[in-house]
Amino acid sequence: MHHDVVADWHALLDSDDLSRLSEMLAEYAVFHSPVVHTPQRGKSLVTMYLTAAAQVLLASGFRYVREVVGPSDAVLEFTAELDGVHINGVDMFHWNADGKIDDFKVMIRPLKAVNLLHRMMADMLSAMSAQAAPKG
Amino acid sequence: MHHDVVADWHALLDSDDLSRLSEMLAEYAVFHSPVVHTPQRGKSLVTMYLTAAAQVLLASGFRYVREVVGPSDAVLEFTAELDGVHINGVDMFHWNADGKIDDFKVMIRPLKAVNLLHRMMADMLSAMSAQAAPKG
Repeated sequence: MHHDVVADWHALLDSDDLSRLSEMLAEYAVFHSPVVHTPQRGKSLVTMYLTAAAQVLLASGFRYVREVVGPSDAVLEFTAELDGVHINGVDMFHWNADGKIDDFKVMIRPLKAVNLLHRMMADMLSAMSAQAAPKG
Repeated sequence: MHHDVVADWHALLDSDDLSRLSEMLAEYAVFHSPVVHTPQRGKSLVTMYLTAAAQVLLASGFRYVREVVGPSDAVLEFTAELDGVHINGVDMFHWNADGKIDDFKVMIRPLKAVNLLHRMMADMLSAMSAQAAPKG
């Protein structure tokens, strides 16, 4: 089972189509940001945060460099580079007995990269909210 | 082999005696801080950084909450609390064919915790340097 979840995750990112992301998440999924302590709860919020993170990072030389996988958890280490800043981080996720991701946590180093991501994610989330909001 | 390294790591932290830390490290070990991009190279620098981190964190309700272990890498997630700030992080380490840790990386979230650790580690390292320096 666990290899399927990790393989599905890679296939999702490789597909350039994140619309299938929500199929991979449990309804009660929780997202833990690298910046803020308070968790974001529920599939729709998790989808929004992961989509924003993907839009910021995937265009920036993002690649996975290490993978440590257990029976129901995976830690995928990545590197990227944004505006000349080296970004090193981990995607840590846990899946339930149905193979749905119910907990997704991102950590980033070094400090400079956390500060940059903080700014860029805030801009991206505010752009996404503006698109989602009714016009006029 | 890999279970021994992780078990030895836990035994080291439980022992309240970090003097055996350097036995666990390869000569060419590298430390990657949560704050700074540039790696710290060599057993003595890695020992110094890990000792400083342990002195800051172990007195602060530090505990491991998740463990993901592969054939030659482990990711141990921890929580702690310092000055009322929640700290969540990972110790990620890789070991060589001799079972010696040759790469140790720490990532911390949220941003508030990275900033706090940055300040406290700087103070601790400067206190350690002052102790190590010859007296006036």
